Amino acid sequence: MFKVKVYVTLRESVLDPQGVAVKNSLHSLNFSEIEDVRIGKYMELTIEKSERPVEEVVKEACEKLLANTVIEDYRFEIEECVAL
Amino acid sequence: MFKVKVYVTLRESVLDPQGVAVKNSLHSLNFSEIEDVRIGKYMELTIEKSERPVEEVVKEACEKLLANTVIEDYRFEIEECVAL
Repeated sequence: MFKVKVYVTLRESVLDPQGVAVKNSLHSLNFSEIEDVRIGKYMELTIEKSERPVEEVVKEACEKLLANTVIEDYRFEIEECVAL
Repeated sequence: MFKVKVYVTLRESVLDPQGVAVKNSLHSLNFSEIEDVRIGKYMELTIEKSERPVEEVVKEACEKLLANTVIEDYRFEIEECVAL
């Protein structure tokens, strides 16, 4: 079994209005030192071992569903869980 | 200047309907090996050096705005950026 952490972030060149809204809220709360906020998505997948390599499964899932690759980048970390 | 990565996840005991929806979509796309999906938030903050320690600033921002600590956990990583 694998635990996979997927991070999806907006590309650098894409405006992030949600991040701007959060930044403005933080400034209203007197966090003036927080200069910039970018919001992304974080997903934890639990994947059963199968005949396909897990990297391939995750990559395909990201490309097809989890990330919009036109405006988003993704990266992931795979951890194998050993049953005791 | 600091770059801070904040991860906000639902507590283990809290149901995640968004994760269930994504899991079902993945199953429709024939990713039957993906057993479970949990959705969280990922935020990148850019923080200017100030008289308060950056850990304290981030912790307070998480408690006050970025996470709902009743149902969510948060963790963060701080990287210091050195201007060249």
